[in-house]
Amino acid sequence: MRFVVIGGDAAGMSAASRAKRNAPDIDVVVLEQTQDVSYSACGMPYTIADGRRQLDELVVRRAEVFRQKQGIDLRTGHCVEAIDPQAKQVSGITHEGQRFEIGFDRLLIATGASPMIPDLPGAALPAVKALKSLADGKAIQAWLAERTVQRAVILGMGYIALEMCEALRARGLAVDMIKPGPVLLPWLHPDLTAVVRQEVEANQVGIHLGRQLQRIEPAGEEGFKVLSDGPTLECELVLVAVGVAPNSQLAEKAGLQLGPQRSIHVDKGLMTSCEDIYSAGDCADAVHVVTGRDVWIPLALRANRAGWAVADNVTGRPVELPGVAGTAVFKVFDLQVARTGLNVSEAREAGFDPVETVIQSRSRAHAHPGASTIHVQMVADRRTGKLLGTQMVGREGVAHRINAPAVALHAGMTVADFIQCDLAYAPPFSPVWDPLLTAANQLIKAL
Amino acid sequence: MRFVVIGGDAAGMSAASRAKRNAPDIDVVVLEQTQDVSYSACGMPYTIADGRRQLDELVVRRAEVFRQKQGIDLRTGHCVEAIDPQAKQVSGITHEGQRFEIGFDRLLIATGASPMIPDLPGAALPAVKALKSLADGKAIQAWLAERTVQRAVILGMGYIALEMCEALRARGLAVDMIKPGPVLLPWLHPDLTAVVRQEVEANQVGIHLGRQLQRIEPAGEEGFKVLSDGPTLECELVLVAVGVAPNSQLAEKAGLQLGPQRSIHVDKGLMTSCEDIYSAGDCADAVHVVTGRDVWIPLALRANRAGWAVADNVTGRPVELPGVAGTAVFKVFDLQVARTGLNVSEAREAGFDPVETVIQSRSRAHAHPGASTIHVQMVADRRTGKLLGTQMVGREGVAHRINAPAVALHAGMTVADFIQCDLAYAPPFSPVWDPLLTAANQLIKAL
Repeated sequence: MRFVVIGGDAAGMSAASRAKRNAPDIDVVVLEQTQDVSYSACGMPYTIADGRRQLDELVVRRAEVFRQKQGIDLRTGHCVEAIDPQAKQVSGITHEGQRFEIGFDRLLIATGASPMIPDLPGAALPAVKALKSLADGKAIQAWLAERTVQRAVILGMGYIALEMCEALRARGLAVDMIKPGPVLLPWLHPDLTAVVRQEVEANQVGIHLGRQLQRIEPAGEEGFKVLSDGPTLECELVLVAVGVAPNSQLAEKAGLQLGPQRSIHVDKGLMTSCEDIYSAGDCADAVHVVTGRDVWIPLALRANRAGWAVADNVTGRPVELPGVAGTAVFKVFDLQVARTGLNVSEAREAGFDPVETVIQSRSRAHAHPGASTIHVQMVADRRTGKLLGTQMVGREGVAHRINAPAVALHAGMTVADFIQCDLAYAPPFSPVWDPLLTAANQLIKAL
Repeated sequence: MRFVVIGGDAAGMSAASRAKRNAPDIDVVVLEQTQDVSYSACGMPYTIADGRRQLDELVVRRAEVFRQKQGIDLRTGHCVEAIDPQAKQVSGITHEGQRFEIGFDRLLIATGASPMIPDLPGAALPAVKALKSLADGKAIQAWLAERTVQRAVILGMGYIALEMCEALRARGLAVDMIKPGPVLLPWLHPDLTAVVRQEVEANQVGIHLGRQLQRIEPAGEEGFKVLSDGPTLECELVLVAVGVAPNSQLAEKAGLQLGPQRSIHVDKGLMTSCEDIYSAGDCADAVHVVTGRDVWIPLALRANRAGWAVADNVTGRPVELPGVAGTAVFKVFDLQVARTGLNVSEAREAGFDPVETVIQSRSRAHAHPGASTIHVQMVADRRTGKLLGTQMVGREGVAHRINAPAVALHAGMTVADFIQCDLAYAPPFSPVWDPLLTAANQLIKAL
């Protein structure tokens, strides 16, 4: 039995390792186009924030370990160009230019996602960087080390943009962020977005919304200019962080069914539309536990979990994943921003009749020193009373608190159910009524 | 309609306020034996930790506000001595020595709990203090302010003992803790208890386990000695924190049914064994959501929630509370200690076949600076796979993380269900696999 994995990142290496653990006798081959496997991609902004740190610190397990200790036939520098589902074969070319073909009994497509690069004159200039692979991170770290970089412009304002904004400010750079859209974080409630914006601006970052980008061009000896219909932004580094797209080209060429946003469609057992071919990680879709619909939310936990599930399925331990709730958190300067489930417009689009509440509470008990404001948004369905989603912003106690409503979404709880949950209280950590319960109490009134 | 409330603390004042909000026309009378109502009792150790702070800062709402703005007939200094369920009347005596009688249509007994005082020679000495009421807190604060207090001995090692131990160390006192039992925190898994013990000892606190206390006696001019079958401990302050007992004497005398540990038994609608008489707060029992059995776990959130539920029930909005999961958290020095649900011995006693796992994970992602160890214990039922409880100890990310398994217990999730929950991940806040998921993954193997 040969199990071939395309892509040696979170989903791919999780699947390969677990398959070998489940069934040591099977032949596991991983084809990875870069030289890097198994690294903590999400940690890159925090490593770049510190000029003394090396990106290689983020490598969790080196290629040799997979090869020698785990018996995985890990082939780096192998770029797959085609999948033939009928012949059950993949083919491609190595970094050295050698063509290869390899047959499979089971295949996993774990090709991930790639940063979208806007179609902009100057987007290919060397000062224009994206951040997805470890090599991308190293290129940014080298760019900052090897020249005088005092100003950066970030195209985009998603969570990678915001994390990198914080990292570059930590390096002492002046930072401007620019995008065509009118709102900093369109998925976040406006009241909560205002808090994030205030935090970013308090850290001397320029925010330029609603600006059509025109081109990037060299300016002076080491400088560059980002031109838009607004101000011209000068800098020595341009970071493109306008979003990612699933690497589904191979799957599409092979005739596999695509899902939302051209992700690779899989069933709950992670199988694509073609038997014996699975997909997992940032390239694949998932079922949303609240809507029951297919959704593409590329996040690390799902990638790891789906990789494990594929391994179980190809080694004869059938498993299905119920799906994702879209739970996510990021840090931007001293703020924690978290969400789970649906916001109002997503809820409406999914056919719910959403009712929303937004409250402010405190991170610690009455009179306890050091408390700060926690902002909570909560949305439910008017017809059923079902909890649909929660968003939070605050200086402390947000990142882990979001997991309580996330579990409630998996359980299909109503707001009335959630209100009754026995949450932890001690003065250093929350008011007696946890901010989540205060939000739920308000929401039930609105229902 | 007259609604009489005995006890003006969390449950009592929550009930009185909400009853008046629900039905402004009813007559709400609160009989409180002290002069203090509506204060954050749990905040007292943190206030005492800072000699410049006043205990009155913990008062959330003053008596005048309840009287004048909310129209509650709040009578402080009123000590109820008897309840006559047949005549629907309570009677007692005021601080000024005047006898009173008052009839009720609905009655709430919210008499709380009192610290247990060991039957020990010298336990009545002025240097021996307990901490439950605001007056207790003021007495300790005054004792520390008015004389030279350099050493304290704490009898007991529960969470109030540990919080006060931290507070007194913050004031610069040398602190010893002593108790007859052999284990610091008997309800906590030994591995986790060891972590707590290490933290307490690292803060130069003497821990004396398995010591039978003999007596407390004066020593020198301002000093006292705590004598046991172990070392004699000298000090200028003795804090008694060996646990609390429900104030159920009034209820018992009135013939009401008692529950576990002589708490006042109530149904899910908070009604006692006598119609029209309710009980809520630290004096009343509750149903445990995992076992379905009556349990006495006096905690602040339940008190507030039960107070509200009583108000709803007496004002014609019938409501039942599903129960408690025993979720609790406390801070001791730089550690957070949290639990929800059952431990192994509680699970066994409740008729489950418990399987347990204990893991160590990290509070932040691989290679993220500042990470510390998180210890997670998780227990499930072998027969059904049902999650039964979780305990955690760590320097960060414990207090709010416990709420995720707490919600899972309310939802009746199996470990297999919980493993699939989409929890939040970002490098500053957790590994990709949250410590809770790592524990659940290990537990499922053990199942």
